[in-house]
Parts: sequence; structure tokens; C-alpha cells
Amino acid sequence: MAFDSQIDEHTVRTDSKPPLGDSSGPSPKKILLASLAGCTGIDVVSLLEKMRVPITNLEIDTEADLTEEHPKVFSEIRIIYRVFGKDLKKKKIEKAINLSKDKYCGVSAMLAANSPIKYMIEYVEE
Amino acid sequence: MAFDSQIDEHTVRTDSKPPLGDSSGPSPKKILLASLAGCTGIDVVSLLEKMRVPITNLEIDTEADLTEEHPKVFSEIRIIYRVFGKDLKKKKIEKAINLSKDKYCGVSAMLAANSPIKYMIEYVEE
Repeated sequence: MAFDSQIDEHTVRTDSKPPLGDSSGPSPKKILLASLAGCTGIDVVSLLEKMRVPITNLEIDTEADLTEEHPKVFSEIRIIYRVFGKDLKKKKIEKAINLSKDKYCGVSAMLAANSPIKYMIEYVEE
Repeated sequence: MAFDSQIDEHTVRTDSKPPLGDSSGPSPKKILLASLAGCTGIDVVSLLEKMRVPITNLEIDTEADLTEEHPKVFSEIRIIYRVFGKDLKKKKIEKAINLSKDKYCGVSAMLAANSPIKYMIEYVEE
């Protein structure tokens, strides 16, 4: 049940949990959430750089609820942005996240066609 | 611009191409297609096992066209299944792929809400 995806010079493995697979890679649905986190993360970091808003780190948690019935899809997705830094400019950070949500992040735009996405921000002052 | 996604015990890195990133991992949108391939691949392999249809290998190519405008989303996705084996039972293989498409693959169900998906099958007799 393991699939090695060749993407340019990279390989990404997906697999299922036992008994179907061997857990030799994450499940496709979890990789989908990693794609979402990577997409909006790239947007937010590059927008904050353009806006000259310094942060020291950005962590993104993604969570999703699955429907009970086949095909099992995300009934809701939650993205939690955890922004680290000193004297964080919350208004501008919120603006960058909204720009990713509304304008730039193609992955969230695609997933939002099927699944409502909730956005949360946590600030960690250092 | 690189994000390491911790998924259970696995790490999946996404990154952007230069000048934005360093290409240290595949782009989020390409990972999305890997998720799609892994999802339908697991379905097809497990369905063919249940149907006692032997194959020696399954390769899946995924391609997508992007819209020009932001947010850049897939205007069309194409999945090409390349099935390897001897005396391949095409009707049953087609049935397994249709079951994945219509019933089991949550990733394709989610993506199809935004992007039309085309399915193609190639048979490689060995």
C-alpha cells in the first residue's frame, strides 16, 4: 500500500496504517494537511517579509474532522498559526494571514470548495 | 520558506523554488497531487486484492493545469493509472478505479469539488 511519489528531485512516500499498510509513510489525507500548511506558511512568511514585519518562527498546526461515510472527506479543517517573536505586530500578521486565505493560497482555496476552514492565531512573545 | 510537517512519526518538507525558497522539498501543490495519487493508489491496490485480480505493479501519474490568477488553483487534474501484469483483467481494473473515484477516495472527492478530474488507464502486459 506504500506509494513513493517522485516530485522533481524529491520523493514523498504515502502509506496506510496496519492492517492495510505498514505506516512506512504518512497517510494521503494527512499529507493533504501538510500541503495546506506549507502553502499558507509560504504565503504568510513571504508577505510578512514584504511588509517588514519581523517574526522569529512560525508553526502551523492543522486539524480536520472526517465524515463517517465514504468517501471520507474533511467536514471541517482548522489551521492554527503560532507566531513567535518580540513586540509582534498583530494587526499586520492578521492581515498577512487573511491575504493568504482570501487571495494567495491555492491549496486552501481548493480545499475550501469542499470543507469549511477555520483560522486561529496564537502569539508567543519572546 | 521551508516547512517541515511532522505527521505521526514522519516528516514531510515543503519548500518553494528559488528565488522565494531553496527547492529543499516539493511545492505544496505538487504534494497535493502526491496525496491524490497515494489515496487512489491505496484504494485500487486493496480493491484489486479483494477482487483477486493480480497485478505486478501500479504506477500513477498526476498532472494538473493551474489557473493564471490568484489564488492559483487546479483548473483540471489528470490521473493516469499504469497497470502492469500478465493477462490483465481490464473490466475489473476499471471497476476498481471507478470505485475509488466514486466511493472511496476522499482526497479525489475533496479536490473534485473545485477541479474537474480526468481518469486514464494504461495497461502494460508483461
